[in-house]
Amino acid sequence: MRGVVLHAPGDVRVENRPDPTIEKPTDAIVRLAATCVCGSDLWPYRGIEAVDGASPMGHEYVGVVEEVGSEVRDIQPGQFVVGSFFASDNSCEICRAGYQSRCVHAELMGTIGTQAQYARIPLADGTLVATPEAPSQDLLPSLLAASDVLGTGWFAAVAAEAGPGKTVAVVGDGAVSLLGVLAACQLGAERIVIFSRHADRQQLAKEFGATDVIVERGDEGVARLKELTSGLGAHSTIEAVGTQESMMQAIRATRPGGHVGYVGVSHDVQLPGDELFFSAVHLHGGPAPVRRFLPDLIARITSGAINPGKVFDLTLPLDEAAEGYRAMDDRRAIKTLLRP
Amino acid sequence: MRGVVLHAPGDVRVENRPDPTIEKPTDAIVRLAATCVCGSDLWPYRGIEAVDGASPMGHEYVGVVEEVGSEVRDIQPGQFVVGSFFASDNSCEICRAGYQSRCVHAELMGTIGTQAQYARIPLADGTLVATPEAPSQDLLPSLLAASDVLGTGWFAAVAAEAGPGKTVAVVGDGAVSLLGVLAACQLGAERIVIFSRHADRQQLAKEFGATDVIVERGDEGVARLKELTSGLGAHSTIEAVGTQESMMQAIRATRPGGHVGYVGVSHDVQLPGDELFFSAVHLHGGPAPVRRFLPDLIARITSGAINPGKVFDLTLPLDEAAEGYRAMDDRRAIKTLLRP
Repeated sequence: MRGVVLHAPGDVRVENRPDPTIEKPTDAIVRLAATCVCGSDLWPYRGIEAVDGASPMGHEYVGVVEEVGSEVRDIQPGQFVVGSFFASDNSCEICRAGYQSRCVHAELMGTIGTQAQYARIPLADGTLVATPEAPSQDLLPSLLAASDVLGTGWFAAVAAEAGPGKTVAVVGDGAVSLLGVLAACQLGAERIVIFSRHADRQQLAKEFGATDVIVERGDEGVARLKELTSGLGAHSTIEAVGTQESMMQAIRATRPGGHVGYVGVSHDVQLPGDELFFSAVHLHGGPAPVRRFLPDLIARITSGAINPGKVFDLTLPLDEAAEGYRAMDDRRAIKTLLRP
Repeated sequence: MRGVVLHAPGDVRVENRPDPTIEKPTDAIVRLAATCVCGSDLWPYRGIEAVDGASPMGHEYVGVVEEVGSEVRDIQPGQFVVGSFFASDNSCEICRAGYQSRCVHAELMGTIGTQAQYARIPLADGTLVATPEAPSQDLLPSLLAASDVLGTGWFAAVAAEAGPGKTVAVVGDGAVSLLGVLAACQLGAERIVIFSRHADRQQLAKEFGATDVIVERGDEGVARLKELTSGLGAHSTIEAVGTQESMMQAIRATRPGGHVGYVGVSHDVQLPGDELFFSAVHLHGGPAPVRRFLPDLIARITSGAINPGKVFDLTLPLDEAAEGYRAMDDRRAIKTLLRP
């Protein structure tokens, strides 16, 4: 099969890779209908995260089940399925508490590489959620978004306790941040303020429910937000970048007793204990337990209530993945969908 | 009046200080019935926190109202009152959300110094809670505990979401930690594990509801806790020390999706973003909004449901405050009550 491999920073190639096979009786093989490039794929692409030899890429996926292992009970060949970036048994105590990304048997899909024609999905019964029927082509981008960026933005909004009567601030304007806006709006937030300096992203944020845009960053951005909130700051802040600046901006943007939901994969962040202590905010985040939200998100998408697939503003054949990475790296695209 | 002044690390003196007077129309003057030495007073006493000239000490207090300013409506002379270490208006948006320690008009009582015969209490109507009637002498230690250590331990337990079915870990065995045990027990926790290596404190922890004691610290302590919790860690962890080691021990002791409630005043703590991210814990804490809990705590104390005053294992006249500090510094006493 064809699959994306990162050889070194900036060096993305689409190559022939071995077809995946059932390795464990709980595995399934999925023929991918759509996959995509994640903001987190840009960390190694930019050389900020080490590239340890040739690495298959990708952890977002939707597709049709081709084959299942002998112990798979619920998932069946022919079903259209959505999974997320952690395989999970969905039955251990941690999964039952809603933290499937930290399942005691969790496996990270990034090492498997779903920017490809096929993928082996471990713990298929726990990991995959089947749609009620085969979705129409126009729903594919939104279902693919549920696989990571929507599920992650949704978790951030839930972790930030976005809801009725709340002012929600969103730090970052990538796909996860934009879908954090959508999630906050669906959860009933009263006011949604996004920090963004890119016109196309501001526009999409407004379509998703943002009520205000702040172009300033860091402490200047925080000062602008406080002007909008009687000097108090946001009740709920979504952080989806993962840098020292973005984390401090999120903490400082939040009022005492408020909630920061952070999902940007942390890079070289050190949180000063004294400032955090006196901020009196709630801090919760980490790798999103997307599986917790998938059934609800699939229902919202198939009913037409939400259209998160709008974050894909570039669609390319899988073989042109390198251009998809470049476009995101240059910020010419918010997010690239790849058709295998 | 007589009052405690810290002149330099280790140099505590009881001196004649000017009687406090009404400075603002929202002030009250309270004749103190009891006051005490806080674990946080030991930071400057030990020279870990800078001592900036002669500093009046103390921020815990109960007593009888002597006089009120012209704008005080609810609090009246003659009432027995309990306050906490932040004066607050109890009416701003932050107070109404339950974060009175970060009231928009908050004033820190530590700068006023309640280890004395009298104290001026700002924002008296918001800050002070009157008891239904003048309490008997035997209730004074418990009511004084409500003023800080009980209120702080209670907040830590609430922030850690201690409750039915939960295993709660407690990092530290000072007065706040011990009262965190009591709070977790009152909140219905199933199992309460304290990290302690002092026999007297272990004993009191058990009286307050601890079910298990772990003598190991740091990662060894975490490993022991995991053995007790099917490898998963605590649902809820109370942190009441404020060092790098104690914060990391608390985060590592907590299962993914669990809650860390931290109230130890942070000293030279830097939380590594990547470890925090992948821990997937909830982190909440800071200066406890004791005022939120005072009415409930006073009711539990006056009804005899709880006896938090047991943390005072040394009682001295105010004039012997220096010995009270020494005893706590040497760990000969858990907490010293001073009688003005």
